[in-house]
Amino acid sequence: MNERDMQAQQVVTHMMEHDKFSQWLGITVLEIKEGYSKIQMPIRDEMVNGFGIAHGGIAFSMADSAFAFACNNRNNLSVALDTSINFTKAVQVGDTLIAEAKEIHNGRSTGLYQITITNQHNEQVAHFKGTCFRTGKALLPL
Amino acid sequence: MNERDMQAQQVVTHMMEHDKFSQWLGITVLEIKEGYSKIQMPIRDEMVNGFGIAHGGIAFSMADSAFAFACNNRNNLSVALDTSINFTKAVQVGDTLIAEAKEIHNGRSTGLYQITITNQHNEQVAHFKGTCFRTGKALLPL
Amino acid sequence: MNERDMQAQQVVTHMMEHDKFSQWLGITVLEIKEGYSKIQMPIRDEMVNGFGIAHGGIAFSMADSAFAFACNNRNNLSVALDTSINFTKAVQVGDTLIAEAKEIHNGRSTGLYQITITNQHNEQVAHFKGTCFRTGKALLPL
Amino acid sequence: MNERDMQAQQVVTHMMEHDKFSQWLGITVLEIKEGYSKIQMPIRDEMVNGFGIAHGGIAFSMADSAFAFACNNRNNLSVALDTSINFTKAVQVGDTLIAEAKEIHNGRSTGLYQITITNQHNEQVAHFKGTCFRTGKALLPL
Repeated sequence: MNERDMQAQQVVTHMMEHDKFSQWLGITVLEIKEGYSKIQMPIRDEMVNGFGIAHGGIAFSMADSAFAFACNNRNNLSVALDTSINFTKAVQVGDTLIAEAKEIHNGRSTGLYQITITNQHNEQVAHFKGTCFRTGKALLPL
Repeated sequence: MNERDMQAQQVVTHMMEHDKFSQWLGITVLEIKEGYSKIQMPIRDEMVNGFGIAHGGIAFSMADSAFAFACNNRNNLSVALDTSINFTKAVQVGDTLIAEAKEIHNGRSTGLYQITITNQHNEQVAHFKGTCFRTGKALLPL
Repeated sequence: MNERDMQAQQVVTHMMEHDKFSQWLGITVLEIKEGYSKIQMPIRDEMVNGFGIAHGGIAFSMADSAFAFACNNRNNLSVALDTSINFTKAVQVGDTLIAEAKEIHNGRSTGLYQITITNQHNEQVAHFKGTCFRTGKALLPL
Repeated sequence: MNERDMQAQQVVTHMMEHDKFSQWLGITVLEIKEGYSKIQMPIRDEMVNGFGIAHGGIAFSMADSAFAFACNNRNNLSVALDTSINFTKAVQVGDTLIAEAKEIHNGRSTGLYQITITNQHNEQVAHFKGTCFRTGKALLPL
């Protein structure tokens, strides 16, 4: 493994240890590389909305974690500016979701990421887009 | 109160009773009118991200609930298509947020809503926009 | 008029002089204040799409100009990052549109603006949202 | 060529013939398949904004045309609901852009498309996302 991917993993390990909401969500980190993340999450009964399917905030929250794990992992503290999500298939209790974050643009001050969420049948359930601002501050001591 | 606002409240009461995630979030419904909702939510310790502030999914989830309570309350089951959120101020543990959903467009098949989230100092912390598709199905028996 | 609004007008006058596409669109500047703009545009025959109504790019372009005139006018060169638009009513040849840009958030490095477009019957036809990055460079000599 | 792609091309030929703004933009259709389009456009001097680079509305308009050519081409008249665009690289006069529209989701009543715009150096300059509503009406006689 190259040094940049190793640093990326250290940053995300540090983030995940302090991220109580991602812990509540039951997120497992599957793969971290520079500017990239892949995470997994099972859908539990307490995640449903008034219609008995997963609340829209559940898929968004998962995507937002994947986004954070990808855009911060060069050890450059980044802040979400504008994020959007499209829902293309209902998510059910018992589903296991995988979110994969890809870097579309890595600018000096800003970045753009696309996160696709799929279920255990490999069906795409949501499409997230996030723009971040890079503060230039380190998360971990250099 | 007019009949339409009364029906709107009945729809949201029904939704909220089944919405386990909104219950976990600690959402309180403050006001419901036809095409409108206003809700409140306190920020708890278990809602933080890896940086010790509220996870972006928390504000999104609150706004998404306010959106659902506004766009479904004509007893016309609606599905979120595209939603986006901008974060303009960090949310801290101990904050109490209020989300207000306003109807920008009420089309026959689709609708557009804007939700503004403010904290207890009346500072705007997030701006949400949601487009829904109206299925034409009733949530409550007519 | 205060000095900041006066500078805002000077910046927009300078921008508009060089903005050949806004000139082609037939944009007239109605009002400029710090972080604010209001512009007008008539819809011409050459602006239609394949269905005989105004092309979506026409309303977007107008809103994007209003956005630029609002977010740059503190003489701080700004770059659009993420913009979105919702179309709520068809625009016809012969309509006269007015776009009003309001500043939702004025951060040091970024800004958020909402632009509403209405037609001559005061009907809202489109809703635009724009996030910009502020470069810190001046447009006009200080 | 299969029948569906042939129909798709007939629909787009019909649209392009009436689309005066796409004609003004100088759009050339490169490839049409069911739910897919690829188009080309040169950047001219009259397309610049106040900073001497292509106005944001130019890339948006191109992407919006590619979106329309993809989402309507099953001969099912579709209306844009929510569209967004991220700008990742400035576009210069003399550049030749290519926009490629891919179908992410083809629902019965709605659809989701992603359009990527690249320049002649194969650099990505903009990323567009569009959600449409399908009216069920035909564009061409069946």
